[in-house]
Amino acid sequence: MKLDDLPTPCLVLDRRRLARNLERMVSAVALLGVALRPHMKTAKSADVARLALPEGGGLTVSTLAEAEYFLAHGFGDIILGAAITPQKLDEVARLNAAGGQIRVVTDDADMAAAIARHPGGVAALIEIDCGEGRSGIGADDPVLLVIASQLGERLAGIFTHAGHSYAARDRAALTAIAMRERHDAARAAGRLREAGHDCPIVSIGSSPTALISGDTAGITEMRPGVYMFGDLFQAAIGTHTRDDIAVTVLASVIGRRPAERRLLIDAGSLALSRDRSTQATAQDCGFGLVLDAGGEPSLGETHVARLWQEHGLVELQSGAVEGFAIGSRLRIAPDHTCLTSAAHDRYYVVDGGEEVVAVWPRINGW
Amino acid sequence: MKLDDLPTPCLVLDRRRLARNLERMVSAVALLGVALRPHMKTAKSADVARLALPEGGGLTVSTLAEAEYFLAHGFGDIILGAAITPQKLDEVARLNAAGGQIRVVTDDADMAAAIARHPGGVAALIEIDCGEGRSGIGADDPVLLVIASQLGERLAGIFTHAGHSYAARDRAALTAIAMRERHDAARAAGRLREAGHDCPIVSIGSSPTALISGDTAGITEMRPGVYMFGDLFQAAIGTHTRDDIAVTVLASVIGRRPAERRLLIDAGSLALSRDRSTQATAQDCGFGLVLDAGGEPSLGETHVARLWQEHGLVELQSGAVEGFAIGSRLRIAPDHTCLTSAAHDRYYVVDGGEEVVAVWPRINGW
Repeated sequence: MKLDDLPTPCLVLDRRRLARNLERMVSAVALLGVALRPHMKTAKSADVARLALPEGGGLTVSTLAEAEYFLAHGFGDIILGAAITPQKLDEVARLNAAGGQIRVVTDDADMAAAIARHPGGVAALIEIDCGEGRSGIGADDPVLLVIASQLGERLAGIFTHAGHSYAARDRAALTAIAMRERHDAARAAGRLREAGHDCPIVSIGSSPTALISGDTAGITEMRPGVYMFGDLFQAAIGTHTRDDIAVTVLASVIGRRPAERRLLIDAGSLALSRDRSTQATAQDCGFGLVLDAGGEPSLGETHVARLWQEHGLVELQSGAVEGFAIGSRLRIAPDHTCLTSAAHDRYYVVDGGEEVVAVWPRINGW
Repeated sequence: MKLDDLPTPCLVLDRRRLARNLERMVSAVALLGVALRPHMKTAKSADVARLALPEGGGLTVSTLAEAEYFLAHGFGDIILGAAITPQKLDEVARLNAAGGQIRVVTDDADMAAAIARHPGGVAALIEIDCGEGRSGIGADDPVLLVIASQLGERLAGIFTHAGHSYAARDRAALTAIAMRERHDAARAAGRLREAGHDCPIVSIGSSPTALISGDTAGITEMRPGVYMFGDLFQAAIGTHTRDDIAVTVLASVIGRRPAERRLLIDAGSLALSRDRSTQATAQDCGFGLVLDAGGEPSLGETHVARLWQEHGLVELQSGAVEGFAIGSRLRIAPDHTCLTSAAHDRYYVVDGGEEVVAVWPRINGW
């Protein structure tokens, strides 16, 4: 099967780029002397997980559906990274009884008490806010010890995520965020130990901060995720280059307006997502960068300028619209690969060429 | 099963509101004296289609996956509304050979020739641009007759969509768009007939324009879709009221920050979509309007202010964060129900209350 044989729109995963991205992160994290616990919320694929962890190890997931799926595919050591609710504990306990070792995350004293009360024996990490301002408590917040006491024997460690690293626009700012992430996690872990608690796991990481070298004293693991595939946003903030973007959307030309130098493609809001992350960077790519059918940037800075549910508007920067027949193929590099990939139920895998060498399913939903 | 028993995030469909919305459109289109060919790209559900067409009839779909699904559920009379490519004709022909009567749409002379050459005998409508500027040719464009000649016996009629009706902000502007939509479609059909072609179908319609009364001479059918569920954007432009919004996302509180009067919920970019249509209206609702667990607007103008992949940030306008335990439920009315619904694989159906009376699957993907 060739790319030309595929129905459009669909996801194409370049396994050579994926392998390069994975190796780079394995090396970076090894240099930092910590374990890699990749976040599978981007790839949502056991095939990708096996490549990301060639020697095995633990994963991070964002949903119970992912936890169940990865456990069924042999990955039992899991942190469920989105804060847990009382109602979800039953399912976690069920999966753990089936062989999983799924740990959950909380930043709430009442929830910690619910975890401790739950008969399933689910272990939890305490979430620290290292500056993102989304979830977690401060590393010096007195409630840290309250939550730890509530958890008691269920306390498994400290968890933080420097998601605000995505807002850094230079190396100095990014390095400062990475150092704060490490410091706050280690500081919170130290406070727990001073109070007599065990704190075996000190888990941090985002794709940008995991690549920053420097002191990781007190840190046990890193949880990057988007590094596997990369996207235009990560390229714009310098986490990788555009040539590292491993996932693109294959689309067909369904309309053309020569006078306006416009094409319509069959990848719209559903196939690409409405994420426009690059708008906040110096490299605004609209709703995606348009590549040729081989995935090469031969169309220059041609972007998807507008989206409807199943239509995307391509504004050509060079070349004539007449060069594109109805049905001809383009590839779209996404602004935010996590959201674009989530619209699709599978990857059509290539090794850089036109031959589809594998089809890998994804686990979407909740 | 009650709403409280459901895993979150998930879609809740209020069948009473759905029925009211469906009846309103059936009446409006009957008054116009045309057939209703509802667009199923919003609901993507055979259960909804059966209610939308209590006496049977044709449907509109946006993908081949929808066409296959609805044919399998007894709806064979289908227009595939997104412009066709040569590669997709084989699948249309296969479905037609299996009992379907699927017609396609084109605005391209080369594509029309490909349709005429295809052995499957697929019929096509010619797409007219009545002012949206997305796809289609002008009603007076000379190429109309070229395309018609290319199609020959495969010509099934005229097709247009006043998608720019969504940009109208007052009744006068909307009425003008509706009249232009009807005029341009009838004008193009008239030109075809003058040139000796049959033009049995003259298909128009968007949810806002279908509700505008007035002359529909020459029009055979209307294709509204989003009217079934409604959303905050349609409420903001006056197509219906907020009380008509039939689909909401059920979410759980997973975090709370009393000092900032903020809650975190487990509905993020994936469960809600990143569509922010209401930003372009006088009623910006962020990424969604926050309702209580019963679906009532008791929280006032409380919005989802920010999204991450699996986290949504709720900024409370009144009431204390402490009133919301971790795990308590909220419902989110979406900006754009087509995109929000597409993130989910099923509807949990209620009749206005807490009891889940049915579970209806959706057909996503391509």
